[in-house]
Amino acid sequence: MGAVNPVSFIAEKRAGKEHSAEALEAFFAAYLAGQVADYQVAAWLMAVCFQGLSPQETQKLTEVMASSGKMLDLSAFPHPVDKHSSGGVGDKTSLVLAPLLAAAGCTVAKMSGRGLGHTGGTIDKLESLPGWRGELSEQEFLAQASQVGFVLAAQSAELAPLDGRLYALRDVTATVDSLPLIASSIMSKKLAAGARSIILDVKVGSGAFMRTQEEARQLAMTMVALGQAARRQVRAVLSSMEEPLGRAVGNALEVVEAARTLQGEGPRDLEELVLALAREVLEMEGLEPERAKEALRSGAGLAKLMAMVEAQGGDPALIEHPERIELAPHRLAFSATQAGVLARVDAREVAQAVLALGGGRRIKGEAIDHGVGVELIHKVGDSVKVGEPLAWIYHRGRGVEEAEQALARAFLVAPEAKPAPLILEVIR
Amino acid sequence: MGAVNPVSFIAEKRAGKEHSAEALEAFFAAYLAGQVADYQVAAWLMAVCFQGLSPQETQKLTEVMASSGKMLDLSAFPHPVDKHSSGGVGDKTSLVLAPLLAAAGCTVAKMSGRGLGHTGGTIDKLESLPGWRGELSEQEFLAQASQVGFVLAAQSAELAPLDGRLYALRDVTATVDSLPLIASSIMSKKLAAGARSIILDVKVGSGAFMRTQEEARQLAMTMVALGQAARRQVRAVLSSMEEPLGRAVGNALEVVEAARTLQGEGPRDLEELVLALAREVLEMEGLEPERAKEALRSGAGLAKLMAMVEAQGGDPALIEHPERIELAPHRLAFSATQAGVLARVDAREVAQAVLALGGGRRIKGEAIDHGVGVELIHKVGDSVKVGEPLAWIYHRGRGVEEAEQALARAFLVAPEAKPAPLILEVIR
Repeated sequence: MGAVNPVSFIAEKRAGKEHSAEALEAFFAAYLAGQVADYQVAAWLMAVCFQGLSPQETQKLTEVMASSGKMLDLSAFPHPVDKHSSGGVGDKTSLVLAPLLAAAGCTVAKMSGRGLGHTGGTIDKLESLPGWRGELSEQEFLAQASQVGFVLAAQSAELAPLDGRLYALRDVTATVDSLPLIASSIMSKKLAAGARSIILDVKVGSGAFMRTQEEARQLAMTMVALGQAARRQVRAVLSSMEEPLGRAVGNALEVVEAARTLQGEGPRDLEELVLALAREVLEMEGLEPERAKEALRSGAGLAKLMAMVEAQGGDPALIEHPERIELAPHRLAFSATQAGVLARVDAREVAQAVLALGGGRRIKGEAIDHGVGVELIHKVGDSVKVGEPLAWIYHRGRGVEEAEQALARAFLVAPEAKPAPLILEVIR
Repeated sequence: MGAVNPVSFIAEKRAGKEHSAEALEAFFAAYLAGQVADYQVAAWLMAVCFQGLSPQETQKLTEVMASSGKMLDLSAFPHPVDKHSSGGVGDKTSLVLAPLLAAAGCTVAKMSGRGLGHTGGTIDKLESLPGWRGELSEQEFLAQASQVGFVLAAQSAELAPLDGRLYALRDVTATVDSLPLIASSIMSKKLAAGARSIILDVKVGSGAFMRTQEEARQLAMTMVALGQAARRQVRAVLSSMEEPLGRAVGNALEVVEAARTLQGEGPRDLEELVLALAREVLEMEGLEPERAKEALRSGAGLAKLMAMVEAQGGDPALIEHPERIELAPHRLAFSATQAGVLARVDAREVAQAVLALGGGRRIKGEAIDHGVGVELIHKVGDSVKVGEPLAWIYHRGRGVEEAEQALARAFLVAPEAKPAPLILEVIR
């Protein structure tokens, strides 16, 4: 690792040249050692937004970030698997998929993020359950992985700390939106988290970060390649995020829906996506792909979710009886002003409604109201009459008017509607 | 001035959009107030390198930088004029032009920089004279402008401090090389320095920052427009910087050559450029354009240089008798290995030779050896014989071999050579 000239390094990327593996490693080692300044990294990040990174550079950056802190080793556990979602609206997939995989014989020792902007976070959702704790020590995390086979914790700052620093810098310098930076950030955390098989749930559409299938495919292919280069088994499923997934959008509402899904009473689209993702994971691990469906039918998945909630301080009875989970006290109907077929439920607008009610964060660290949210009574393709409720708004008096305006923009009733497929493609 | 969202501002430039005047003003006001971080400005600067700035944005940025500190008012002085050079090799133009203009009736109250890399700085050159001081208070500066009509001081940090901060940031983030950033930086300092007429000496070629005439023309036109928008009279002269200007390259050597030029014994190219620049300045000020030539013939220019040197603590006798100026003790001939016509003397290579001898700075703040340098015995178009000296190397034992290697690359002897014109075009 030679001496670093940060100005030449930045100039190299500005000119569209490719960094050597050694140069990338040296630049970020110097950054972590305080010899390269945040403003130099910021300039480099912006140059990357214009010039991109080659597959080799992206792989090296991922490796440098993954190895910048602690790297968990889950190889002693049976079938250690992990899942990443690119973030959507009403996306409670992890809450259903993870317990089904655990019940099917996998070890799901997973770290998750918190919600920001229009997307929710699994940790926020589970915090709807009084007493449930997502902040675990490494010891607690590994012990639960061993005893329950399923643990869900907040992202540890000890894993891939360089990614944490770069992400924070990207967030304040308008450099978040860059395919190689997004892909390497996600995969560095997944590699540090130690699973052998990783499934990527990549969303496409108005409620997703990737608006087109082509963009999503590029991101997914890049991430799959990064994982495979690090000798992990990785597949990606591209799914539509035009309308919210399932019917519930809002933290407590989504836990209720996840629990009901594990009781066999969930929305069809959520169940379809979860089982598709599970099939890929079980296949990668050489397990019988139908095991997830069996765990759903038998209630073994529900039992795993209850066991995880109990191990992390929550009340498993709330999962068994989700109608007991506390929601915001007021429920208001949002009704159709036109008859016809529901042709569009814009996921981003629904998310805006929940944000307005206080159910999400506009800026990092903001407190959120777990009980508020929107429950969709109708999904795309349903026939609706004038005056019929399309959704329930769960609220505490705050932001109701703004939420109604967002919902008015979200729903489109038309003479007819063609339901779009949920699962778009699988990248192996 | 509204609230600033620095991330949206950066994103706007990243997307290639144009900032409003209000947004630019608010962003930099927030930066100066410590509410926008260096890393955010660094990301913005890199986005500018890719997306550019519109003429309106460039003008506003120039105005914001110029008005970020003290603005001198020279309007009470007769014919207040200023000059900027885009930096060259052997460029002692200011040392000859300024006293001629002062002798011709103008007030030359000028701030200059120090040398860096391959280009020299007027302040470094004058510091070859023992006792001469370039660091003047505002009071001293204005008093001398009034009494002598000619003062030459180091750039004050109180003028255009925002430019100073941005330049320092550009220097360490590989964002120096951007036409609108270069033009606005130069013109903000010139506008703050308060002259009414400004002549821009823009160099083109291997020894200049602008390698092509088209690039130089763009820069010159941008700067002329910026000055005119601020109601100053501005013209630009594009001149060739393929071979060094004059024969002397090195601080003390260049002061000697400047003094000799004011005594009518200077190299033809230097005299030609100085008189061309002077003509434009005198015309802008409504003075007789031939006055500079008269000041050269009469010795009035020499007297002005002596008066300035004396007023700033130097010995005017050294200007009258430049052979008394101390040079490095060793002189080595660099000789031709081939007979023919001198076809090329690469200015950048000659500058490398002087850098190697210790006569320039590779990094800011480095000490320099004023006495070392290279004196060109032959210029392009001269016939040379094998073994005949092409240049003298003035040295103190340091870097001689590296200097000889650079000179070996600098000189090209060919069967014939077409001398190129010095002055390429004037932009009014």
